[in-house]
Amino acid sequence: MNETTVNPDALMRFCATCFEKLGLPAADAQITAENLVIASLRGVDSHGVIRLKVYAERLRAGGFKATARPTVICESDSTALLDAGQGTGQVAGVAAMDLAITKAQKSGSGWVCVRNSNHFGAAAFYALRAVGKGMIGFATTNAGPTMAPAGGREARLGNNAFAVAIPAGDRPPVVLDMATGAAAWGKIFVAQQEKKKIPATWALDKNGMPTEDPDAAAQGGFIQPLGGYKGYGLSLLLDVLTGVLSGGGFSTHIRTLYQDLGNPSQVAHAFGALRIDAFMPGAEFCQRMETMIQLMHSCPTAPGTGRIYVPGEIEHETEQRRRTAGIPLNATLREELEALAKELGVKPLD
Amino acid sequence: MNETTVNPDALMRFCATCFEKLGLPAADAQITAENLVIASLRGVDSHGVIRLKVYAERLRAGGFKATARPTVICESDSTALLDAGQGTGQVAGVAAMDLAITKAQKSGSGWVCVRNSNHFGAAAFYALRAVGKGMIGFATTNAGPTMAPAGGREARLGNNAFAVAIPAGDRPPVVLDMATGAAAWGKIFVAQQEKKKIPATWALDKNGMPTEDPDAAAQGGFIQPLGGYKGYGLSLLLDVLTGVLSGGGFSTHIRTLYQDLGNPSQVAHAFGALRIDAFMPGAEFCQRMETMIQLMHSCPTAPGTGRIYVPGEIEHETEQRRRTAGIPLNATLREELEALAKELGVKPLD
Repeated sequence: MNETTVNPDALMRFCATCFEKLGLPAADAQITAENLVIASLRGVDSHGVIRLKVYAERLRAGGFKATARPTVICESDSTALLDAGQGTGQVAGVAAMDLAITKAQKSGSGWVCVRNSNHFGAAAFYALRAVGKGMIGFATTNAGPTMAPAGGREARLGNNAFAVAIPAGDRPPVVLDMATGAAAWGKIFVAQQEKKKIPATWALDKNGMPTEDPDAAAQGGFIQPLGGYKGYGLSLLLDVLTGVLSGGGFSTHIRTLYQDLGNPSQVAHAFGALRIDAFMPGAEFCQRMETMIQLMHSCPTAPGTGRIYVPGEIEHETEQRRRTAGIPLNATLREELEALAKELGVKPLD
Repeated sequence: MNETTVNPDALMRFCATCFEKLGLPAADAQITAENLVIASLRGVDSHGVIRLKVYAERLRAGGFKATARPTVICESDSTALLDAGQGTGQVAGVAAMDLAITKAQKSGSGWVCVRNSNHFGAAAFYALRAVGKGMIGFATTNAGPTMAPAGGREARLGNNAFAVAIPAGDRPPVVLDMATGAAAWGKIFVAQQEKKKIPATWALDKNGMPTEDPDAAAQGGFIQPLGGYKGYGLSLLLDVLTGVLSGGGFSTHIRTLYQDLGNPSQVAHAFGALRIDAFMPGAEFCQRMETMIQLMHSCPTAPGTGRIYVPGEIEHETEQRRRTAGIPLNATLREELEALAKELGVKPLD
């Protein structure tokens, strides 16, 4: 297997050093690195260090502003609007999530929108910041257009995503982190390589018709929204809560991460925090979550299913495993990181 | 066609009078009737006056308390918890939504949970109350267990639903109102009658295996969550935000509307309101929504699609049509309403 592993702390230092070399202040480099490495730790490799290369390219080309500081445009007791100044989505995302938490500490709940931002990585990272404060956390982002509205055949909405993180006492937090598309492109590329059909609910061909042929999907086609019109509605809703409400980019105004590297991508986010002790003592809530989790775990399984998971449990178990065993990197990714280290004059990974 | 139509105002008076005869105070009878009739007007017939009969049965059997008053258990600047006292979900739902709006007027956002409630009908009804106040409205409810967690073969979660309503200026509000299941039972019953296969993503048989046979689904099977694990996660999330956080029923603690009519069903809800002018002037937001709607409408369509709709548009057009043409009632439903009129001593519909 062309796969080696890397120590998570070493990978964190490596990424943070790269970001510093690219001009980010130390604290911002640390936040941006953490977001990528924690995604890799949790097994969400699509949002992990695989993105370091394109982040570096955008930072050098000017699409990410390395020294941008998020600024508050307006606020009320429980809401705020931030301008990210076209920095990394991670820097603005952490500032906004923490402001939502502060608002919730005072008012019970907080809701913060962000405009003029960029790709923010995995949404769970932000939502999880609320959990240690005894809150339910929410994070969402829009993204460059890759999905058609139900019945359409042109990209008008991103595969917009959101995460919710819920404290669960001694258990790992329950974390739902999902995009609004029916499947990830990665799965379609695998089917192409293996010359297998894909389910008719995953993708559209370039004419907007459902297809079981992964090649037809990849050649100018689209991911289908999750469950058709429901996923379309969810994606549009997230675009309103982020892009429309923040005064930022939405729908076709947004660039994807890999498009037009020198220009800001006009991504927008929204973050929410809800104080549990505004409703009941935190310990009582966690007991109730324990009951909920046990009710799921104890459900008899269908043939072929080993056990029932609650959302976030697989990622938590992967994180525990990878903290000890290391984060696997395939040969291509390792070469990419080595080349980047050379370019930036950073000590390469062992 | 065994279908006649009824004037919406006459149907509203009829339902309200029935509820008064069943012991609801006049204002509460009006609210509960409105919720059902507006669903019928909007073409959401599954949540419309078809439910009047079982509501009457639960009111008479004691599962709905006719004279319950929602009471505030605790509150903060932007949150509150209400106990519905086991009244109709509509009475508690309107009180809670209006309290969320009041909180948002002062604090920017409001979030209100409700426990000890019952079936609240269509969620859009509540979310829409925020729109006239220049806010985005949110409403969600849990429901008696009918879905298995991903990989399971016993009911552990309701086909929990939520609605979001968004102001759009001169356009009808954008309204997303969706359940977390892949399909409604109604569609499966139609396939049974027509002896047609169903898509393998809609239902499970009694062993928890996906089935294309609508009979296997109906005989002890389950609706599948929307998109598998994503719909499972969404349904669980809504159960946490309603039942767990409110101190109410969740998962298997809840009774469905048609189960055990004499006992409270332990349903819980949550409502949210977000003031748009905490972020930008309302007129500017509506202009941006106009752009968003136009971007969807102008998307080239796939073969077989006449036009692209935004969420809530079909329901709005149905409402406009039915306000003039009347609400269609099939022969069975009309007989049911006639029998109920007789039992309650209410003047029957013309």
